[in-house]
Amino acid sequence: MTGTSHRAAPEHTHPDDVSVPAAFAALADPVRLTLVRELANSPEWARSCGSFDVPVGKAALSHHFAVLRAAGLVEQRDEGPRRVNRLRRAEFEARFPGLLALVLRDDIRQG
Amino acid sequence: MTGTSHRAAPEHTHPDDVSVPAAFAALADPVRLTLVRELANSPEWARSCGSFDVPVGKAALSHHFAVLRAAGLVEQRDEGPRRVNRLRRAEFEARFPGLLALVLRDDIRQG
Repeated sequence: MTGTSHRAAPEHTHPDDVSVPAAFAALADPVRLTLVRELANSPEWARSCGSFDVPVGKAALSHHFAVLRAAGLVEQRDEGPRRVNRLRRAEFEARFPGLLALVLRDDIRQG
Repeated sequence: MTGTSHRAAPEHTHPDDVSVPAAFAALADPVRLTLVRELANSPEWARSCGSFDVPVGKAALSHHFAVLRAAGLVEQRDEGPRRVNRLRRAEFEARFPGLLALVLRDDIRQG
């Protein structure tokens, strides 16, 4: 094993391997919707997992990121002590056309 | 109480009162996706609850319809012994533009 992190590398699922129900389930949570929207407004790989303003503890946050990875929405990599993120915008859009756009529209009341 | 049915009339939620996470949660299930797609391909009020080809029992089916009503996706009324359904296509589209269309597109692999 190489690198400075003791954590296992995160496992990812490509959007092409994600079902429609799994994609909707990943987006059926207010915390995950906040993570997706904040990532959409940030440069790729700019945001560490601890940088999001969501009202959940570390274990819950880790679970939410696992769900987003499994739905093909988020890619993560470790940079030293930081785990950084990017939204898989193009790949997810190719698999589910218009779905991310719907979540990110600010003319739709999101509450 | 009037009418021939002993059941309580179904309770409905208007799509305007449905949150984004609740809408996605309602669509995050393969049985409910099947119900929505079959309703979209049927005339309004033509389909009774028992007319759908889904691999679930009566109690589970009743739960799925309750979730669809609570998400503003389905309206139901009793006609004698039959409970019949319509998809709230226009109202749901007004609240969540493009979401139903995405579910109903047949050029997207839905599995």
